[in-house]
Amino acid sequence: MLGSNQYGKAEIRIVRVDRRPGGDELTDLNVSVALRGDLAASHLTGDNSNVLPTDTQKNTVYAFARQHGIDSIESFAQRLAEHFVASQESIREARVSIEQYLWRKVDGNHTFERTAETRTATVHHGPHGTQTVSGVRDLVLLKTTDSEFHGFVKDRYTTLPETADRILATSVNATWRHDGADPGAAKRALVEAFADTHSLALQQTLYGMGSRVLERCPEVVEVKLSLPNKHHFLVDLTPFGLDNPNEVYYAADRPYGLIEGVVRRDGVEVPEEVVWSF
Amino acid sequence: MLGSNQYGKAEIRIVRVDRRPGGDELTDLNVSVALRGDLAASHLTGDNSNVLPTDTQKNTVYAFARQHGIDSIESFAQRLAEHFVASQESIREARVSIEQYLWRKVDGNHTFERTAETRTATVHHGPHGTQTVSGVRDLVLLKTTDSEFHGFVKDRYTTLPETADRILATSVNATWRHDGADPGAAKRALVEAFADTHSLALQQTLYGMGSRVLERCPEVVEVKLSLPNKHHFLVDLTPFGLDNPNEVYYAADRPYGLIEGVVRRDGVEVPEEVVWSF
Amino acid sequence: MLGSNQYGKAEIRIVRVDRRPGGDELTDLNVSVALRGDLAASHLTGDNSNVLPTDTQKNTVYAFARQHGIDSIESFAQRLAEHFVASQESIREARVSIEQYLWRKVDGNHTFERTAETRTATVHHGPHGTQTVSGVRDLVLLKTTDSEFHGFVKDRYTTLPETADRILATSVNATWRHDGADPGAAKRALVEAFADTHSLALQQTLYGMGSRVLERCPEVVEVKLSLPNKHHFLVDLTPFGLDNPNEVYYAADRPYGLIEGVVRRDGVEVPEEVVWSF
Amino acid sequence: MLGSNQYGKAEIRIVRVDRRPGGDELTDLNVSVALRGDLAASHLTGDNSNVLPTDTQKNTVYAFARQHGIDSIESFAQRLAEHFVASQESIREARVSIEQYLWRKVDGNHTFERTAETRTATVHHGPHGTQTVSGVRDLVLLKTTDSEFHGFVKDRYTTLPETADRILATSVNATWRHDGADPGAAKRALVEAFADTHSLALQQTLYGMGSRVLERCPEVVEVKLSLPNKHHFLVDLTPFGLDNPNEVYYAADRPYGLIEGVVRRDGVEVPEEVVWSF
Repeated sequence: MLGSNQYGKAEIRIVRVDRRPGGDELTDLNVSVALRGDLAASHLTGDNSNVLPTDTQKNTVYAFARQHGIDSIESFAQRLAEHFVASQESIREARVSIEQYLWRKVDGNHTFERTAETRTATVHHGPHGTQTVSGVRDLVLLKTTDSEFHGFVKDRYTTLPETADRILATSVNATWRHDGADPGAAKRALVEAFADTHSLALQQTLYGMGSRVLERCPEVVEVKLSLPNKHHFLVDLTPFGLDNPNEVYYAADRPYGLIEGVVRRDGVEVPEEVVWSF
Repeated sequence: MLGSNQYGKAEIRIVRVDRRPGGDELTDLNVSVALRGDLAASHLTGDNSNVLPTDTQKNTVYAFARQHGIDSIESFAQRLAEHFVASQESIREARVSIEQYLWRKVDGNHTFERTAETRTATVHHGPHGTQTVSGVRDLVLLKTTDSEFHGFVKDRYTTLPETADRILATSVNATWRHDGADPGAAKRALVEAFADTHSLALQQTLYGMGSRVLERCPEVVEVKLSLPNKHHFLVDLTPFGLDNPNEVYYAADRPYGLIEGVVRRDGVEVPEEVVWSF
Repeated sequence: MLGSNQYGKAEIRIVRVDRRPGGDELTDLNVSVALRGDLAASHLTGDNSNVLPTDTQKNTVYAFARQHGIDSIESFAQRLAEHFVASQESIREARVSIEQYLWRKVDGNHTFERTAETRTATVHHGPHGTQTVSGVRDLVLLKTTDSEFHGFVKDRYTTLPETADRILATSVNATWRHDGADPGAAKRALVEAFADTHSLALQQTLYGMGSRVLERCPEVVEVKLSLPNKHHFLVDLTPFGLDNPNEVYYAADRPYGLIEGVVRRDGVEVPEEVVWSF
Repeated sequence: MLGSNQYGKAEIRIVRVDRRPGGDELTDLNVSVALRGDLAASHLTGDNSNVLPTDTQKNTVYAFARQHGIDSIESFAQRLAEHFVASQESIREARVSIEQYLWRKVDGNHTFERTAETRTATVHHGPHGTQTVSGVRDLVLLKTTDSEFHGFVKDRYTTLPETADRILATSVNATWRHDGADPGAAKRALVEAFADTHSLALQQTLYGMGSRVLERCPEVVEVKLSLPNKHHFLVDLTPFGLDNPNEVYYAADRPYGLIEGVVRRDGVEVPEEVVWSF
């Protein structure tokens, strides 16, 4: 029997230029759509009478950018999600996910340089209402000190020495469920908490980062963080007759620690219906 | 407050050589561990007395390969997952995920060539018992005909023409929940159903592929498929005075359709506890 | 002043289906074109009267696939390169580079599975005539024994122990200049020499591989090899009370050795004009 | 016979922290070494008596970072290259290539955020003396207007319409041969010329960018640019009853134009010996 299923167009690359007298604005997005509903016939017999083609979903993204503009990735995702559910009787849930690549103006008018920053938004819309999750990806942070790791369990396979001073580095992948929070404020809270938390474990830093977003952004109810521990190992220079006073490190690729957790505002329930199985 | 959380070591690259008189065997794996349990103190105060270091988890993977060998990725994942839960009072659930890269012998003894094939296994172990999910990744299939797409919904934004003959191509990402199924048989069932299903929609092909695995592998209870529709567009050669009788195509990168679904053996329930939120 | 320069369209993805009664044939290519000639005006003043648009180059690739078919990537590259030079007075040299992705039939007729194998061809055509270079990429080979490394220079910074038995693994990037050699025979020679050379250094294996191609393929005059030394380090299991008799290895990503060299048929000169500065 | 050859350690990842009272400095590098010299014996017979192990080269990079610090990537590369040639009689040429990943301080002291910017340096050292080439990579620039493309050749395969207003976007890969130029000044010259050149062809922009570096940086003698033309296609919205006044674009991945050229200070000769065949 057919279980849960969804379909849509993924990675629709759209750039919109808002041409203004005082200088253009540039919006650079990667949009993915996923739809759910009465889609069994297409699976069981190839009857596509309930299937809005993924090509049409792509066209809709481009047309809506012209018809309605793009105020924010959250509002654009919501408009698209509502449209698919409202216009197609067979579609009951829509999830629209958007990555935004940020650019920095390099003259007063028309020229831009792409930055390292990527923002994300996912809007779920269906019978349960609308849920908005925003985020940042691949925000790479490093602190050169104020990070310790000790007091951990030792078993037969433990060789890691305890340390009172190590480099702590991560590539932040964060999402937050909210109702209208400013993404810039959330990002600043993440960076600030990473910087000023004296860390006894990356877990502690994670909790500090999530809590800081909740403090600074009253519209946020829940923050999810996935933090790889990008290990920087102090190189042993003693074979060459040299000391290494926390100066020269090897930046490793794999393996890496992976610390993941949710920090939630007290008293908030997680609505079950926002979790999809993909 | 702290919500759900987990931690572990990701992407531990291990190669094991089983040296035998008749020729060596090579096992090439990428192992990731995630643990859950009484980990609040590490988050809230940096008290790591319940934290088995991720470095220790890495060491355990290497040591177990020597102590116990690696019969299959499923059994190796299960042994590791059970070990972490059994040996650490604070750890209540473990998930071990393994990618296996397959190699082909090119002489009778010691030399191997890597193939394109990647197999996967994830074992969840905890209070709910043990669940095993195996799979294949990045299995790229293409059929040159026997694929149609028509009878779909048309709205204001629809421009896609109906077609009775197109290329169908995908990169299969499949997982199946099972109790001891042969991964080679499951992979063959996926390929065979892709080949012999006359497709009216990629959804129909997906359902055919999942059903075929259930038919051929009685140990499988559920198959999950994520199938990008890798579009091949017929090039319009009429501006050059040429026809194009389904011969010359442009292979597009993005966007792509993404068709995802679960096919389940009748009467089987999905245990809620196997779904983790990450 | 303007120095050497070239322009063209890169990464034109084309798939051609040759539909035959006994079963289809599939050709899957990534084509890049680079042209040189009287192109100073475009650089200096934006006068494009000598510029054949890169969009036209793309169209030509698709049209030629229909007009002439694709016998081999070498002949297709040569036909294209000759066309651009012959048809444009301002273009004096053309280089066409093609990657071919190989597929394996999985039924008797219409269905294919992509393999790991990539072949390459580059044809230079110009006043100096035509040079053809073919190759293979990302051919990953490993031998579990028959590899030693000792007798090397030791200086103040040397800590590497000598070894009489190590894993040797590489990802072969090979090109050969030739006049009509069979690429399958060249690839087989590379694999065979990797397998049967008892290696005292990856350099020695490199020389053996290049020499074998020259032996087996009389049409080849020169072989260039770029061989990363994909290190597999024996894991020290003694902290866990375990030995490790060449059984359990860590497969490292970076850094890696990189051994590169040319093996040339005796008496052959390298024509200077085939070396472009990009 | 053995032709040209080289060997070395590639992608040595090193992070150095310069701990200072007023706040730390962070240097994050990826270093690759290639050596040439009397290396035939290793290839022909596996006699490694002239081979300084690549592992030793790696150790040297880490040790030199401690012994000498890292003033700039150019000086660090030069020190390493000179060392290998001076200390090993058999080594006659060394090329050291470094990528530097730039970080931005996010507090006054110890915390950094990685930026999108990558700088490069390659130093060749040998009998011919020392040549230094610096550069930037993956500097993604876009202008929303002031770009035209017309007056080009039309042949049978040309369908591209002429345009007087298009988006121009590229990912700058630039290198410059110099004697002590400030990399920040060179980068600013590239960005500035991209912005203020009214472009009739990407070739013209390339020449303008190279010329601007020569104007601003007297120490630079030659600039090499490789500029992909990252196409942004205006979406045809007429099927949906909408116009598209240069507002909504599709950002394509492949194929792309690739425009490459050298801009050289008048009267400067290119020393042949700096061009290596790899």
